[in-house]
Order: sequence, then C-alpha cells, then structure tokens
Amino acid sequence: MDEHVKEQLIAVTGIDFAKTTTAQKLSYSYDATAGFQAMPDLILSPASINEVQAIVKICGEHRVPIVSRGSGTNLAAGTTPTSGGVVLLFNRMSDIVELDEENLTMTVQPGVITQEINDRALEVGLFYPPDPSSMKISTIGGNVAENSGGLRGLKYGVTRDYVKGLKIVLPSGELLSTGGKLTKDVAGYDLTSLYVGSEGTLGVIVEITLGLLPAPKTKQTMLVFYDKLAEAAETVSAIIAAKIVPATLEFMDKGTIETVEDYMNIGLPKDCEAMLLIEQDGEPVVVAGDMEKIGMLCKENGAATIQFAQSVEEAERLGTARRVALSALARKRPTTILEDATVPRSEIANMVTAIQGIAKKYDLLICTFGHAGDGNLHPTILTDVRDAEEMARVELAFEEIFHYAIELGGTITGEHGVGEMKSPYLEWRIGEAGISTMKAIKSAIDPLNIMNPGKMFAKETKKRIVVKNG
Amino acid sequence: MDEHVKEQLIAVTGIDFAKTTTAQKLSYSYDATAGFQAMPDLILSPASINEVQAIVKICGEHRVPIVSRGSGTNLAAGTTPTSGGVVLLFNRMSDIVELDEENLTMTVQPGVITQEINDRALEVGLFYPPDPSSMKISTIGGNVAENSGGLRGLKYGVTRDYVKGLKIVLPSGELLSTGGKLTKDVAGYDLTSLYVGSEGTLGVIVEITLGLLPAPKTKQTMLVFYDKLAEAAETVSAIIAAKIVPATLEFMDKGTIETVEDYMNIGLPKDCEAMLLIEQDGEPVVVAGDMEKIGMLCKENGAATIQFAQSVEEAERLGTARRVALSALARKRPTTILEDATVPRSEIANMVTAIQGIAKKYDLLICTFGHAGDGNLHPTILTDVRDAEEMARVELAFEEIFHYAIELGGTITGEHGVGEMKSPYLEWRIGEAGISTMKAIKSAIDPLNIMNPGKMFAKETKKRIVVKNG
Repeated sequence: MDEHVKEQLIAVTGIDFAKTTTAQKLSYSYDATAGFQAMPDLILSPASINEVQAIVKICGEHRVPIVSRGSGTNLAAGTTPTSGGVVLLFNRMSDIVELDEENLTMTVQPGVITQEINDRALEVGLFYPPDPSSMKISTIGGNVAENSGGLRGLKYGVTRDYVKGLKIVLPSGELLSTGGKLTKDVAGYDLTSLYVGSEGTLGVIVEITLGLLPAPKTKQTMLVFYDKLAEAAETVSAIIAAKIVPATLEFMDKGTIETVEDYMNIGLPKDCEAMLLIEQDGEPVVVAGDMEKIGMLCKENGAATIQFAQSVEEAERLGTARRVALSALARKRPTTILEDATVPRSEIANMVTAIQGIAKKYDLLICTFGHAGDGNLHPTILTDVRDAEEMARVELAFEEIFHYAIELGGTITGEHGVGEMKSPYLEWRIGEAGISTMKAIKSAIDPLNIMNPGKMFAKETKKRIVVKNG
Repeated sequence: MDEHVKEQLIAVTGIDFAKTTTAQKLSYSYDATAGFQAMPDLILSPASINEVQAIVKICGEHRVPIVSRGSGTNLAAGTTPTSGGVVLLFNRMSDIVELDEENLTMTVQPGVITQEINDRALEVGLFYPPDPSSMKISTIGGNVAENSGGLRGLKYGVTRDYVKGLKIVLPSGELLSTGGKLTKDVAGYDLTSLYVGSEGTLGVIVEITLGLLPAPKTKQTMLVFYDKLAEAAETVSAIIAAKIVPATLEFMDKGTIETVEDYMNIGLPKDCEAMLLIEQDGEPVVVAGDMEKIGMLCKENGAATIQFAQSVEEAERLGTARRVALSALARKRPTTILEDATVPRSEIANMVTAIQGIAKKYDLLICTFGHAGDGNLHPTILTDVRDAEEMARVELAFEEIFHYAIELGGTITGEHGVGEMKSPYLEWRIGEAGISTMKAIKSAIDPLNIMNPGKMFAKETKKRIVVKNG
C-alpha cells in the first residue's frame, strides 16, 4: 500500500486506533479456517459511521481492498485478507443503540457480541433466537454478514429471519438505509435480505435493527441414544410427521460420542451409533405434552436409552455433550476442518451413511455431528495440514461430500458461508445462471471490487467429477 | 409489435393459447388499480417452463416487454401493460407439483390459487400462513412477485418468510434455480428473497417451493369496540407489552364501521370510534389463556364492548365485519383507492389521527382499516376518478399520507407493492442511495429492460414537499 494512502487512512481514526506493526498484522492475517493466511496492509478501528464512510471513500479512490471483520470466527476463510488492504474492526462500534419493547426490535452496532444481545433481550422478557455456537465471542456484524445459523434453526430460523433493517456504507461511501422497525414493507427490492449473508462483498454493515420475540416460558431437554444410525434419522422424521417442531434437534455420530466421552467423562454410552439432543421450549403445558410425545416416538423408533433432564442444571449437563463436540474433536489431531454440507431433513440418514463411506474410501477420520432437524450436518475431518498427501485426500473427500449433498437436493454450506474456501464449489450448487446473476449483482454494486475481493466468487470453478459415492 | 415477431411468439404456445382480439386485449389492459390502463399487444398462456423460456428469448431478441400476470388483483398498477408487449398468463401452469410432508414443503406452479395451497396443506394437518385478503382469487405467483401480506402477518410474517426456493426464467431465457427444501443455505447471495417482491421486473417466476408449518389446533376470535381511537391503539401496545403475539389484530375506524354496518346489518355499534378484531391460534389451553388476558387488557384500556365468539360460526360472523370492509366501502362512491401506508406499530394512533386530519384538510372521504398489529393501515379514499378536481385533492392527500408515514419511520407500501402507481414516491422511502442500488441491480439482471418495464422505478421522482400534516 502506498505510504501516502496509508497516512490518509490512519488520519481518519487517528494512530491510536490503527494497527500497523508486523505482529499486529499477523494477528489479523487469518481467521478460524485452517490453511488460509494472508497479511493485511493496515488494521483500522473506526468509531462511527462517518469514519467508515471516510475510509471507504479513500479505499475506493485508491482501489484498496476492505475486509470487515468481527471476531474472526469464520470457518470458510471469509475474513482472511487474501488480497491485502484494510481490515476494519468494530470494537469501537459495539453499543446497543436501542431496545424498543413496543415494536419488539433492538438496534445495535455491528461490534456487539451476539450473546450480549440475547442477554439484554432476556432482561425484559424478550428473545433473540439465532444462537450460532460461537455466540459467546462472535459479533452480530459477523453473524449478519454470514447469515449465521445455530441450534434453534429448525423452529426459529436463522439470522436473516431476524434482521429487519440495516445501515450500510456502500462501496461508493454513500450511506444506505434499508428496512426498519416495520413488520411489513414492500417498497422496492429486499436489499436487507441481499446484504444478510453477502459476506462483506457488497458494503460495510454499520448498524442493524433486529426483530425479537417474547421469550419462551420454559425449556425441556432430553438425550436419546441409538444402536442404529437409521433409527435416529427415523425418529427425526417421526417427530416432524407428528407435527411437532422442537426448538433443538441435534445429532452426534459414534465417532463424535466416543471423542466427547473420552474428553469429558460424562457417562455417554460409547458403544452406541448415534445420539440425539432434543429440546422443546414454550408454554409449560405444551412443552410437557410435546416432550412426552417425542419420548414415545423415540422408543417406537428403537431408542436404546432416553435421559430426560429433571432440572435446569441437568439440562445444562446434557446439552454439554453436544456443545463441546467441536472442542473435543479438535484435541485429536493437529488440524480440525469443520464442514457444513446440508441436505433436506429427509436425507440425513443417507448423507451420514455416505460420509462414513467416504471416510473409509479416503482413509480419513471424519466425525459427524450437527443440526439434524435442519439437515445441517458438520462432518469434521481430523487431519494435519502439514501432511500434504493426507490433505490431498481431505480435499477429495470434501468434494465427494459436496457432490453428494447436492445430489440429495442440498447445499455446500448451510450456515458457515462460502468465503474463499468454498468459492471453487459455489457453481456446483447454484449453476452457471446462479453464478452469473450473483456476479452481475456484485459488479453492479461494487464495480471496483474493493469489498472483500476474492470471496464467494472463485477465479476458477472446480471441475465437478461425477463420482459413485462411497 | 412486428407481425413476424407476433407469429413467432404465438407459435410457442399455439394459437389456442394466445389472445389477440381487441376485446381480449382490453380485458388485460388493467388490473385492480383505479386510473391505470394500457393495451398489451398479445396475451399468451404458456404450458411449461420451456415455453416460458422460448417466449422470453424471443422477447429479448426483439425488445418486447413482458408483464407476468396472475389474477390481476394488483392494487398499484403492477400488472398493467403500460409499455405494451406480451402479458403472460399462468392458467396452464397451475398445478401443485408436490406436497412433501417430511420436509414440510409444497412445490407449486405460479398459477395455483393461494386458497388452494392452504386447503391442500390443511388436508394433511399443515398450514400455509400468508393470507392476503385476495387469497380466494389471487395466484401464488402474484403473491410471490408482490410479497403479499395478509391478516396473519403479525404472528406469522408474510409471503417471503415462506418462500424457500424458486425457479426463475431470467431475462436471458436461462433457467435459474434458487434455494430448495433446505432449512439453511448460505451458498451465495439470497436470490430467493431478492425475487420475492421484485414485481416481475427481474424475471419470470415459474416454480415455487413453499415452507409449511404444523396447523394450529384451534383459533378463537373476539371483536372489541372503543369510544376513543387512542384506547384501541393503547390496547394494541398493551397486548404486545404483555408478550402476547395474536394471530390477527385488525383495526377499523368509525367511517369503516358505519359503512360495513349500513351494508351488512350485523349489529355493529355505529357510534363507536374504533373496532379491533383479535384472533389467537395454537394449542387450546394457550389460546384460552391468551384470550382471557387480552380481554382483560381491552377492558383496562377502555373497551366499551367485547364480543367473544362462542363457536366457529360466530367467529366466522365476527370476522365478516373486517373481511367485507373493502367491498362495503367500494359501494359508496364510484372509485375506491386503497392505500397501504405502514408505520411501526407504536405509531398507529398518530397515523390514524393524521389521516383523519388530512381527510378534513382536503375535504375527502377517507375510511381507514387494516392490520393494527403490523402497523399496516389501509386508508381508503372513496372518490370519483372522473372528477379531475377531486382527484387532484386525492393525490395531494396521498402525498401527505406517504410523507407522514415516512416521518414516523414507516413506508409507502406495506403489502401492495410499488408498481407504476407508487413509483414516483419510492425515493421518498429508500433515498437516493436506495434507488441507485436497486436500479443497478435491475440493469445488471435485466439490461434490456424487458421485464415489466416502467414498474417500481419512475422516470421522475415526485418532488417531496415538506408539509405540516393536517
């Protein structure tokens, strides 16, 4: 980056809020994605929308890439500055601006931690449903940019379903306001939904108005273990067929159960093939009825063991098994690669079986857990990024997983985003017409390609090999 | 239209499915919007996606405008062929393709009547919540193009919230598939949401996959009458403050109540100032509890009379008052213009009071009813399109209504769309940056401007006069 441009940029925030040393740049050269790293030229922490606008204008004039970054928990290399440029941080734009109880909305700056939003809402009996696993450290700006999911997606939907309005600094530096506190608004194209999940490629999100719900009055939890994978999948289908939509319907396979038990010693039966974590929330009488019916459906479909939580503490303990899955798996090998291929709910058993076959075919350790109710699975490959030969097999395995997910009517990413990592596969999912339409939108809004360049759209799409799956 | 081009177009569907006479063209020269009319060149009923693609390709080659039309119930001149060209009908693409009970989805062709979707879902205990007032005659294709709302919007959201996947014929004639049966999918920009509500300006929607919910087990209904408008508005706020979200929370003002009673003689008290129709659905025990609490809140906030429906038939009868509002009003003067200015829920009383003041100021008959829970009001001007002097006052009145709605954080259209009628006001709502972003998207996807040209974007934005509202 030209020194003169750098000075102009630093002048916007002041030197106290710019990071320029090599050590600092290194800290922002990667996110939570294994195998991706690149140095930014400068890291800035603007304090206001005006400062963001000033930075974007300078970047536009000099074609400097801008990577907006929350807490860097991205799992698809969405926040690695692979083209250099400026990394924008939102640690100084992290206020809850307004909680409007009458309109059931909360307006926040992008740097607010997601958990804080939920905590603040609960204080007044309201509820922000999206709960990505990273919510204790991730920012709402990152959640919005990625359209983050979470464990409550089946019943409550994902981040996009709760974003009612945005303020966005466009690539031109202009400020765009979309939506607001309204329940209904059809004045023009839905720019709000377009920006949610756009991964920083269309502008910088600088303010967010979220919709809230009344908080559920109670929640109940159960853990269910199965000797056969198919029985767990059949239970999921049976619950939906009974017209019950649980708040949480999570799945762990044998490998994940074993690993969690080795790590935590919480008494999980290591000889079972599958586990479901099921939660229902709402009015006490309805929750009690639903949980009773769900318990019966589990038994009818072959559950070996059912543990009902008798208290909040026990529910907490049962939930731990699922919550620690990733940390437990991450201890086994040097590199953990978490995927999120997603299929229609009806195809979960097929998908998990296929993943197990693919693991065998490529001689890899793949443990699968995830959101069974959503069909959003997290096949997790435990590997070593320094082993080039094994990494080549990892890539082939993922390609087969993506391929098979798409065959089943699914997608390459349910909640993590495309980023740089999955960009070579995007066309597999959305086709040539999808890629050309999305690229046309990107060029129309960001003609200079300064907003998170290199993300979402690959220079080259991977050739799709037709494979007989494992 | 060039005769040779017309022949090519007719050859796609065959002459039996083309309408070419003046009488036929007249039938499709207008929609439900007063004061807008223009003759198309040709009306075609394609039978398949392939036929739509063939038509779009020919139209692209010869720059022929395409207006997709469902049942023509549009209230913003969204389906008037104001640039001529081809009107596409979907009467031959009106099948329910699949009801998938396991994934809670229904896949339909655009010509299916909305009511039919709800009926089919209910047969298997499922539920398609969006219920625009026109649902007995409107098509789902039109609902999707307009992102139609309805009476259940407060609790259940609008059409966009239930569209999970689309097949779209792009202006190039290519077929684009977006989304699907998945609960989560973040592979690229949300084209599905972009197309919902795009009013036919970005392509032709040829297949729709809808999400369904388990059907609520029961529903209860009450009518509440108030001597003061403010008390009705306070009740709405009090219900939300009590963390209750009713399925329906509808409002009628004095003028509407009087007109409905004159028309129907169902015993509405003509001397009251406001009426609320309140419904809750769900589990019987929860519904009973909610309705009891709501009844108390109505009393506490000054309700003069409360009528609880004791049976399904009585609920039906109470609901009639609200459902016939538009038909009743339409009898009073030759022309009925129904608007849908929308404000945050907290501003309803302010907005209704302002509308009454504006009616007085311009000496017009304006009756207001609508979705109080959503802040989505329908100020309805009863006028005569042949009276130029009065129509000039009507236009000024609407401008003030739009202006004031925007001042209150609202929008120019909550559920009817922009069409041609409101296009001069769109910039008032979304600003210069919003207009330029939307136009950039339109040009990027439809560079030849063949898709419903003249809609949404006006040649000229109305000058916004700063008025002291009535």
